[in-house]
Amino acid sequence: MSAARLARFLPILDWLPGYDRQMAAGDGIAGLIVAIMLVPQGMAYALLAGLPPEVGLYASIVPLVFYGLLGSSRALAVGPVAIVSLMVATTLGEVAETGTSGYLAGAVLLAFLSGAILLAMGLARLGFLVNFLSHPVISGFSSAAALVIGFSQLKHLLGIDIPRSHLITETIAHAVSHIGQVNIATFALAITSFAILLIFKGRLAAWLKAIGLGEAVAGALAKSGPLVAVLATTLAVWLLGLNESAGVRIVADIPAGLPPLTLPGLDMDLVQALLPSAVLIALVGFLESVSVAKSLASKRRQKIDADQELIALGAANIGASLTGGYPVTGGFSRSLVNFTAGAVTPLASIITAGLIALTVVFFTPLLYFLPQATLAAIIIVAVANLIDIDTLREAWVYNKADAASLIATFGAVLALGIEIGIVAGAGLSIALYLWRTSRPHMAVVGRVGETEHFRNVLRHEVRTHPEILIVRVDESLYFANTAYLEDALLARVADHPRIKHLVLIMSAVNFIDASALETLETLAERLRDAGVTLHLAEVKGPVMDRLNRVAFEETLGAGRVYLSTHEAMTDLAGQLSIRAA
Amino acid sequence: MSAARLARFLPILDWLPGYDRQMAAGDGIAGLIVAIMLVPQGMAYALLAGLPPEVGLYASIVPLVFYGLLGSSRALAVGPVAIVSLMVATTLGEVAETGTSGYLAGAVLLAFLSGAILLAMGLARLGFLVNFLSHPVISGFSSAAALVIGFSQLKHLLGIDIPRSHLITETIAHAVSHIGQVNIATFALAITSFAILLIFKGRLAAWLKAIGLGEAVAGALAKSGPLVAVLATTLAVWLLGLNESAGVRIVADIPAGLPPLTLPGLDMDLVQALLPSAVLIALVGFLESVSVAKSLASKRRQKIDADQELIALGAANIGASLTGGYPVTGGFSRSLVNFTAGAVTPLASIITAGLIALTVVFFTPLLYFLPQATLAAIIIVAVANLIDIDTLREAWVYNKADAASLIATFGAVLALGIEIGIVAGAGLSIALYLWRTSRPHMAVVGRVGETEHFRNVLRHEVRTHPEILIVRVDESLYFANTAYLEDALLARVADHPRIKHLVLIMSAVNFIDASALETLETLAERLRDAGVTLHLAEVKGPVMDRLNRVAFEETLGAGRVYLSTHEAMTDLAGQLSIRAA
Repeated sequence: MSAARLARFLPILDWLPGYDRQMAAGDGIAGLIVAIMLVPQGMAYALLAGLPPEVGLYASIVPLVFYGLLGSSRALAVGPVAIVSLMVATTLGEVAETGTSGYLAGAVLLAFLSGAILLAMGLARLGFLVNFLSHPVISGFSSAAALVIGFSQLKHLLGIDIPRSHLITETIAHAVSHIGQVNIATFALAITSFAILLIFKGRLAAWLKAIGLGEAVAGALAKSGPLVAVLATTLAVWLLGLNESAGVRIVADIPAGLPPLTLPGLDMDLVQALLPSAVLIALVGFLESVSVAKSLASKRRQKIDADQELIALGAANIGASLTGGYPVTGGFSRSLVNFTAGAVTPLASIITAGLIALTVVFFTPLLYFLPQATLAAIIIVAVANLIDIDTLREAWVYNKADAASLIATFGAVLALGIEIGIVAGAGLSIALYLWRTSRPHMAVVGRVGETEHFRNVLRHEVRTHPEILIVRVDESLYFANTAYLEDALLARVADHPRIKHLVLIMSAVNFIDASALETLETLAERLRDAGVTLHLAEVKGPVMDRLNRVAFEETLGAGRVYLSTHEAMTDLAGQLSIRAA
Repeated sequence: MSAARLARFLPILDWLPGYDRQMAAGDGIAGLIVAIMLVPQGMAYALLAGLPPEVGLYASIVPLVFYGLLGSSRALAVGPVAIVSLMVATTLGEVAETGTSGYLAGAVLLAFLSGAILLAMGLARLGFLVNFLSHPVISGFSSAAALVIGFSQLKHLLGIDIPRSHLITETIAHAVSHIGQVNIATFALAITSFAILLIFKGRLAAWLKAIGLGEAVAGALAKSGPLVAVLATTLAVWLLGLNESAGVRIVADIPAGLPPLTLPGLDMDLVQALLPSAVLIALVGFLESVSVAKSLASKRRQKIDADQELIALGAANIGASLTGGYPVTGGFSRSLVNFTAGAVTPLASIITAGLIALTVVFFTPLLYFLPQATLAAIIIVAVANLIDIDTLREAWVYNKADAASLIATFGAVLALGIEIGIVAGAGLSIALYLWRTSRPHMAVVGRVGETEHFRNVLRHEVRTHPEILIVRVDESLYFANTAYLEDALLARVADHPRIKHLVLIMSAVNFIDASALETLETLAERLRDAGVTLHLAEVKGPVMDRLNRVAFEETLGAGRVYLSTHEAMTDLAGQLSIRAA
């Protein structure tokens, strides 16, 4: 295997030889900042997934190392993310109770299955599949998922029990009807956390620079909002004894020590039950990851290899399943932080992993008094970024079908749940595309002045010939539109009884499949019976090559295939005037 | 409602006023010939569906009248058909035992459900859905179904018990291993029936004409093959007592009298179990029916309205369910016979229905000794027409992807059964289409001589400009190909470092969806960062209208939208030479 090919499968070979101190400094700072962000986030997302907080930390160690060794992105920060965590909760909620060992075993198995699916897709080079989710579907899905995630945290903010439901209305109704049970201390801690997070996220960096701090230091400090919120509220609970006096729920005991080695139990019934969700978790996770990786890579003119990303994410998830974790992927906001904090190689991620490992070994006692309300606030602030109105507004102006698939996906996720929602959205966007191509736009064209250009008679001042109908078909011809084409052309000919020649302009026809070929043959025959000759013009090279294989020109009888519309018009008008004379 | 609109919903109003004696003669003869053909065929298909033979006759009375009143085809012969009968057998085999009242009730319910689905689709104007089955998929499906049907009759030909299976290999293996049990008399009757059927189907009409019969009489006689086979073998069994002496299985008692009135029992569990199959039976039946109706209508310049056909077939099936029948549709061979025998209006079908009614009232005792082997032979000769090698051969030459979906459908029907097979085939042909459009053909073009024409540099002798890259994109831009487009264009630009301008020729782009719009915006930005300006040329009217809604030209920065490639080339080459000077 050549070095270049090897480097493709082990991207680390690309950057390690040229590694220098300046790169190390960037990676070091970025690794530290991401670790500070990831400790509370990892715990928060684990709780969102219905798992103990330490599982989120375990999922932030080995997976990061595996991705760092194999991933083609230089700045992607892998770990627990909100949407995947919610999907894990939805899936496992159907096979086990939260808090049981079965639930935990299910999470490990789900990580293993998703990892295996990603790996298999990568080896089969199926990275292109992700292209079949359109931007509006992704936007509708993300916005709805953000709402579902946000409202799932309401119970932690208010300190009341709300049964889990993907129906936001149910969650709100329950909260309103139990408003008397709100735990005031919990709510106050949540508000405090929000205030800290929003201030740090907002204008803090500008203020710090204004008082003279360097840009790098100011930026780094501004990213420590979650850490500050954690410290402030943990101290408040500890000092005021809020957990005992006011019933504030806290994270409490987290087992100290490195992640346990776990082997996913391959109970075949459970595998079968989890497999469909594992496929969706793998696909959604891959989609989120590859989108952020691509947008970061393009800023530095680097390239993302979708198939290699599948392999790296697959390895990361299998790593998670072997070390007590749960499904992970590249997260949007965390990767952006990693990138802007200066990460230039995956070593940043490996440093983050090391710091998280130190945390689980030494610092978990510090997190004992951390209120769950703070973690809920961190989640809500993070997912608020996913709510995307701009795409809807633009799609509405540009193309109502895209807006419709956005709204439908959004609605389906809210009404039917996150998994059915995304499948329905993807199905709808494909159906809309097929529907559109099944009713191709056709234009009757005429000559513009004395030029060789032919344009739509409805849009331009053009000249036509009473016995020659020239129609431009604006779509490739394939099985779904072939009946429509035939009906539409025969109807047009029926409307113009003087027509002797029908010329189809094929400049926009990129392909003619076997069904459409058969239809063209029938059409030529039926037109001939009606005294009309069918001709083609401007047939593209690849299309003509295929038609020649089956000697299509013979089927046209007296009809011809013209190079240009101009040539067709001149020749046919000439024939008709000779006959008339 | 105007008369024209009313006539659309009641096509009978179209032809009844002008009905004359000549039309009556044609309809009368055709009605008679189809009835002669339909009595044995109806019974044979009922047996294929696992139902008593009289059910096939019941399904050949009221449904024909209902279709005659509502259908838009003048020559379609509705009734039991082979493929739908096989699908009924497959479906009911999973909910009841053949011969039980539950099986019969299931058949009636299936007819009702298919009818209701067809009617609902017609009212919702969903006739276009059938276009999504490509010709190769239909061909593969029909060929495989014909084989499955043919081999399902092996037990009747040989007179041995073979368990029902959709796997032909199993059927053959069972027959071979029980070859010692073959009933010789049954087999001899089967061979006799085949001989009669094939002689009539083959050269008989020519011979009869040679001995001086008129063409019409000779043609009509040649179509009575099934009747002659029935008469000859029935007489043989009766005269030789083959049912008792040799154990030949016969049709035996058929209850005399008009069809019973039946009400489909709406047991919700059963409805749920049968619904998916009812949808497929409705779709496949509609497809067969509308294909034959269209091909016959085109021979006489008549029009088929797909939505009206849905309504008429829906009514026919509901009619079948109310009179002890089972799902029906327009059959291929029978309709062709009806047409060539001279049917000019649906009255021919109504005459057929009357003759079948007379048969069930008066003539069923005559069918007592009819051997089941004869019915099996009739089925096999009928379905042999469905085996279609030509389409495969043509598709193979013309387009391998079409050939692949034909073969895959064929294989899926044989390996997985008729219902999964057709769904898999349809899914595959859509997937192949999406796959093809997701990797659009792109051509770098150059100027042909001194003309205004630009053609592919790989196919023609053309001139290019070292600093201007002109690429023609041969596909509409939508979510599934937008990533491919971006990668391909950026790679081309990276390969040509001297490039200053990239012009995309949009003559083959019929649509740009919101995802692709976003990609074009990003592409323009990324090219600009690389010192390359993006331009468009030959954008179609409808596409430009949409781009203007979002002020796309502004996103291009220094880039422009040119009317023609020639204009783009002239302008940009001019700019570059001014700068160089």
